[in-house]
Amino acid sequence: MTDDPDPRFLRSRQAMLDAARELLLAHGPGAVTHHRIAEHAGIGRATVYRHWPQPEQLLAEAMATVPLPFFEAPASPFRPWLAGEFTSLARELELDEVRAVATTLANAALWNPGMDARRAGFAGVLSRRLAAALTAAEQAGELSLRGEPSDAAALAIGPLYYRATIERAPADAALIERCVDAVGVWTSR
Amino acid sequence: MTDDPDPRFLRSRQAMLDAARELLLAHGPGAVTHHRIAEHAGIGRATVYRHWPQPEQLLAEAMATVPLPFFEAPASPFRPWLAGEFTSLARELELDEVRAVATTLANAALWNPGMDARRAGFAGVLSRRLAAALTAAEQAGELSLRGEPSDAAALAIGPLYYRATIERAPADAALIERCVDAVGVWTSR
Repeated sequence: MTDDPDPRFLRSRQAMLDAARELLLAHGPGAVTHHRIAEHAGIGRATVYRHWPQPEQLLAEAMATVPLPFFEAPASPFRPWLAGEFTSLARELELDEVRAVATTLANAALWNPGMDARRAGFAGVLSRRLAAALTAAEQAGELSLRGEPSDAAALAIGPLYYRATIERAPADAALIERCVDAVGVWTSR
Repeated sequence: MTDDPDPRFLRSRQAMLDAARELLLAHGPGAVTHHRIAEHAGIGRATVYRHWPQPEQLLAEAMATVPLPFFEAPASPFRPWLAGEFTSLARELELDEVRAVATTLANAALWNPGMDARRAGFAGVLSRRLAAALTAAEQAGELSLRGEPSDAAALAIGPLYYRATIERAPADAALIERCVDAVGVWTSR
């Protein structure tokens, strides 16, 4: 953590982050150690320690680059828009890297406050965006929400997350339709 | 792995498994190493290696003792029975130990075939039991299933798992009711 603007500094930092992501994806979070990152990136171990004194910081920073491009631009008609968003999310969750990041975050958050903050950030963004989209759909007269909008993420993203990480099977169109229907009663197609 | 019936052998094996569970619960799966188990259980490191050459085997065995007492004895009226089962499952998922085991399994399964087999076992038992209970409810005329019974676990357990491990918040009665309603249309209360 320094303000050094040296381009070599930035390049070596990126090389270490790339190495951390590759090790996470190939071997799991236990492989993201100073020793293996130094070896994988071809950089001295002391340099890795200088940037990230704790391996958890490095793992968290490498994971932070995963984008979260869901529920950002709700548009009427909302039902097909939402089905499209859930389909994109389901396809993302079938990627090894996304599954690795999501399950590492859920697991590491139990013991590491920095990872827990990152988990809370992801969960909060998804929950707020989805609730805002559903409120807009209701105001447009296209949806009658059942229950609290803040429960929608658990009810509709939860099944896709469970299918991808616990059942380890694809979410087909039928399951995605049922996630769309789980949030409320749609008065338009 | 040996057939030694010596009671001291069994006692030390149990002490190592207890140490593995305690280390997992307190510090996460990265702490379940031969070195720390030997230290925690007061047993020589060579003994730990003799029982479990790989630390993953030890972690998997320590986790295997977590019971899975859900959806075992379906009974009419099925709707309140199911609400009770989901409530028990939600309360279990709020326990640190259960969250630790569930998220470690989902994460480690991505890289470790033994852990993946254990994950598949857990997921399969829950899915089959729930599908059988819902089929019985339908045959009793209490439920009109929507979609495939094999989707019910994702639709109803998924929200509780996401709430407990990603949102890290309690599942209240309203969310549990919506999980009950996610499986189909109930024709009885």
